[in-house]
Amino acid sequence: MEFELTILGSASATPMLGRHHTAQVLTVGRELYLIDCGEATQARLMEQRIRFGRINRIFISHLHGDHFFGLFGLLGTLQLQGRTEPLQIFGPAGLDEILTTQLRCSGMALAYDIDFQLVDTERHQLIFSDQQVQVYTLPMRHRVPCCGYLFREQPRRPRLVKESLPAALTPEQLQALSRGEDLRDEAGHVWLRHADVTAPAPPPRAYAYCSDTVYLPELAELVHGVDLLYHECTFLHDMLERAQQTGHSTARQAGQLARLAQVKRLLIGHFSSRYRELQPLLTEASREFEPTELALEGLTVTV
Amino acid sequence: MEFELTILGSASATPMLGRHHTAQVLTVGRELYLIDCGEATQARLMEQRIRFGRINRIFISHLHGDHFFGLFGLLGTLQLQGRTEPLQIFGPAGLDEILTTQLRCSGMALAYDIDFQLVDTERHQLIFSDQQVQVYTLPMRHRVPCCGYLFREQPRRPRLVKESLPAALTPEQLQALSRGEDLRDEAGHVWLRHADVTAPAPPPRAYAYCSDTVYLPELAELVHGVDLLYHECTFLHDMLERAQQTGHSTARQAGQLARLAQVKRLLIGHFSSRYRELQPLLTEASREFEPTELALEGLTVTV
Repeated sequence: MEFELTILGSASATPMLGRHHTAQVLTVGRELYLIDCGEATQARLMEQRIRFGRINRIFISHLHGDHFFGLFGLLGTLQLQGRTEPLQIFGPAGLDEILTTQLRCSGMALAYDIDFQLVDTERHQLIFSDQQVQVYTLPMRHRVPCCGYLFREQPRRPRLVKESLPAALTPEQLQALSRGEDLRDEAGHVWLRHADVTAPAPPPRAYAYCSDTVYLPELAELVHGVDLLYHECTFLHDMLERAQQTGHSTARQAGQLARLAQVKRLLIGHFSSRYRELQPLLTEASREFEPTELALEGLTVTV
Repeated sequence: MEFELTILGSASATPMLGRHHTAQVLTVGRELYLIDCGEATQARLMEQRIRFGRINRIFISHLHGDHFFGLFGLLGTLQLQGRTEPLQIFGPAGLDEILTTQLRCSGMALAYDIDFQLVDTERHQLIFSDQQVQVYTLPMRHRVPCCGYLFREQPRRPRLVKESLPAALTPEQLQALSRGEDLRDEAGHVWLRHADVTAPAPPPRAYAYCSDTVYLPELAELVHGVDLLYHECTFLHDMLERAQQTGHSTARQAGQLARLAQVKRLLIGHFSSRYRELQPLLTEASREFEPTELALEGLTVTV
């Protein structure tokens, strides 16, 4: 099953030419999950040729504009595109009031329902589950209530191994095996064990999104071993004091967290506009944790 | 004095790659007036290398997202840039509530004041005046309360003609002439008439912004003779019925209004995304009124 992440924006709050505000799309099978939605996310989706209609769930980390000001335009365009399917939006308190006020004051009646799901940014808990993924909140520490999101793939079923199957099984027998059952004869005795004709499923994959936050070593436990970790690094470590004052992390800290959490790969993003060149941030993070990449606009990573 | 218009967006509500939502900058002398502020207007300002800090007044026509969703991001960036000067925002009822809710719910305390000026979209009246311009509302007819804006340059002073001036005038005498006074001797008799040493000032220029609206022939009187008219033309005339249903105009109607109002030049914009090619819209409008141009992104017109 497809499990991949596309980066739509790498900038922090002050925008600059060519760097855009935070938004990411996680594709799991046929479902698209939008993570944060900075201004002009709809333009980024068009650039990446991602069909808006495939997005059914949006996860907002916090109410700083660079993480959610694109939501209004996207909702409007979905309306113009004739959407009728409900749209689920997960986010902190206040977002529902902002959305309701916008819609009311601009006289906009949507033809689809918005199912707003309030998240408690202070707790790590399961907030959503479907056939593809489970989604958990990850408490961040920032200047306003903020949480990251952890996407864990649902366990996949063991795969039937064609070569091990006896010939002439009925469709019903094959379905029973697919469900994980053994086959029994009329007397109730097992004559074909599920375990003997299947290969174990690959382990479920996981992606953790951590933005915006100061360095939080306790986060390592919650994202332990994930296949892909995105961690913000607004500054280089020589600006640690400024990072702490503004509720952000440094590139070194992002690398440290990845190492501590023993993740497989690290993406860093949310770069301050003071850095025209991003190589120094990559170098600094990579010194702590080698498999690190810059989360640049248009990058697609298979998890 | 500089009096020029820069187009930042030509799209109507449904955005498309390369066409952006409505926003325009009118430069008069050292002042910049922002007219409408669609999503990602701040990105467009950066592309045009326009300094955000020079904008002190913003005029919003109506509360459809493609005309104001860029306001929040722009206000946030002004804050990050350290603005302390107050910012005046003119717009219809509801905009102040949207702004207040956004700021409160996202915990954003601006270091500068927003002076919100409610406009009555149903009346044609003077709403603002400074040393450069007078600004009047232009009632539009759309699906929600909406007005255009008319910018009239303040009358310029007659220009002193160097060759007509006697030698050895004192600075005080020159200043008096500049203020429009005659020079008198001690007995109070005029010895140098202001009219004899000045050339008449060029007539004040005017720019009218009309978007979004159905065709309103009565508008011609209000914008009569302006140097530059921007009029929306969302559709070609074969879609007249759809234009009327959605509160928009056709290219032919935009041309008709320009001719009726005897303006000097016409700009058309706010093109429906159904038109990949814009030449047919230009051709249709030009047939009614020859000096017509497409209001495309990046176009700068001296009024």
